[in-house]
Amino acid sequence: MTLLLSDDDVAATLDASATVDAMRDALLAAYQGRLIAPPRASAPLGGGRMVLTAGHLTGEWYGFRSYDTFGHPESGQLVVLHDGRTGAVRAIAVGEELGSRRTGGLGGVAVDALARPDAVTLGLVGSGRQAWTQVWAAAAVRPLREVTVHSRSAANREAFAARVRAELGIPARAVPSAAAAVTGRDIVVLATTSRTPVLDARDLAPGTHVNTVGFKQRNRAEFGPDLLDAADVLVTDSPAQAAAYDPPMLAAAPPYADRLRDLGAVLAGAVPGRTGADQISVFCSTGLAGTEVFLLDRLARVGAAAR
Amino acid sequence: MTLLLSDDDVAATLDASATVDAMRDALLAAYQGRLIAPPRASAPLGGGRMVLTAGHLTGEWYGFRSYDTFGHPESGQLVVLHDGRTGAVRAIAVGEELGSRRTGGLGGVAVDALARPDAVTLGLVGSGRQAWTQVWAAAAVRPLREVTVHSRSAANREAFAARVRAELGIPARAVPSAAAAVTGRDIVVLATTSRTPVLDARDLAPGTHVNTVGFKQRNRAEFGPDLLDAADVLVTDSPAQAAAYDPPMLAAAPPYADRLRDLGAVLAGAVPGRTGADQISVFCSTGLAGTEVFLLDRLARVGAAAR
Repeated sequence: MTLLLSDDDVAATLDASATVDAMRDALLAAYQGRLIAPPRASAPLGGGRMVLTAGHLTGEWYGFRSYDTFGHPESGQLVVLHDGRTGAVRAIAVGEELGSRRTGGLGGVAVDALARPDAVTLGLVGSGRQAWTQVWAAAAVRPLREVTVHSRSAANREAFAARVRAELGIPARAVPSAAAAVTGRDIVVLATTSRTPVLDARDLAPGTHVNTVGFKQRNRAEFGPDLLDAADVLVTDSPAQAAAYDPPMLAAAPPYADRLRDLGAVLAGAVPGRTGADQISVFCSTGLAGTEVFLLDRLARVGAAAR
Repeated sequence: MTLLLSDDDVAATLDASATVDAMRDALLAAYQGRLIAPPRASAPLGGGRMVLTAGHLTGEWYGFRSYDTFGHPESGQLVVLHDGRTGAVRAIAVGEELGSRRTGGLGGVAVDALARPDAVTLGLVGSGRQAWTQVWAAAAVRPLREVTVHSRSAANREAFAARVRAELGIPARAVPSAAAAVTGRDIVVLATTSRTPVLDARDLAPGTHVNTVGFKQRNRAEFGPDLLDAADVLVTDSPAQAAAYDPPMLAAAPPYADRLRDLGAVLAGAVPGRTGADQISVFCSTGLAGTEVFLLDRLARVGAAAR
């Protein structure tokens, strides 16, 4: 019997700690070669493409995420989980929630691995779905005491701050500028749809950790080279995907590419992460392929156990 | 709200006449360029591939079928239908039934277009799921009076004949050889998993129409060149897919390729089909891409109307 999950089901079932744990396991599995995640495949359909990103956890499961590039109002994303032994379709998630929780979870792993152990303040630029799952996951790995948020719409940022207070129980304020949101924060999240920089790296305090979730490519990025120049530690969740961006990802091109580290390798202890309390660390999120299916596997186990 | 359909749902809802009508419409839409169906896309997963065949009926819907090549006991095929205006996932079918009904429907269109108008006897080699949907669809376009069936397993062919009698109400006999199944029949169906010929073209009566559903490639085919040499009319549902087979499809390689006609073009009246009662016509089924989604669209409308 196939489990069909809507966005509401995903939101009601997924726990932030469990999501961060799942993404940590996924990053380690990818680093160790157990999680196979090939480049995306796509089919042109006239006016848009159907795209598939697949994954296979050896001996456990395989599956894929599908989405399209038509730009319709509903994204219609699908994540499909097959049993690795029988081939049966165990679960299907329809919508955007699983993908953005997955991205949040990867960001949570980055915060846990790279932010200072005593980090307690978080500033966001962006107030959409991706911004939400970043703070949701960060709160699972650090005891946040204050959240500041800026986005272009005053109504949206006020609603976001109210949601942080209500759902996460953390004091939160909407502020009228990006600088006000990020200045002096321990953790900074950029989660916008901006194609031009929203951050001035001079506003970052020494010791800050930054997660970037939005555009991060040459001539299309929510931050400029100044952030990468300021970074003592530069990390991504998939160096292979980062290198395949078109146009190129800023952090995966010279002069930064040689410094870009694999978060899985940091978790495995193969390369260092933060080595000083005053370092600035930057995590460039690419969305490691296969991680949506990884998370759906965890979710399906919870769902099955609840029956 | 996404409609999730199992094999049982598909079998209970799909009507043979409606399926043949849908596939006729799909073939015409593809011929007219309204049904966009690009080559399959696939992602390697170590030990198998995840494969996607997509389709887009301009202005109406888009979607895909996914399957894998791991060879697991459950096929785990998925067919996904998106609304062409909103992008929403309207329906998902899990399993093999939709795909084989689709193939049956294409075979039914071929029988309707190419068999003699007075064809009433049908002989099958093969007694599996694909053989069943071929006779199921053929019975919707010709008033069959007798069905003969051969397959390697006596138990399977007897069960198949009993199912034809019970579900289609047509006299049916299991016979001990392929020759006995096809000799003197008006319509012949090959639907085996054999990689070597199961048919001797000399057993075919003048005026016979043949549907071939199984392997049909060089050095891997359920029939030999003798069938193609005997064919006065040689047709496929997708010349483009036929030309892309690897190893090459027998009918799409010299000396047959120049004679291979597009069933959609025959339906549109652009090229002739059968022009004489004594001609032998052969339909090489390739499974036009996008037709599973086409059929799921029809099924979802019925399902929605039934609520």
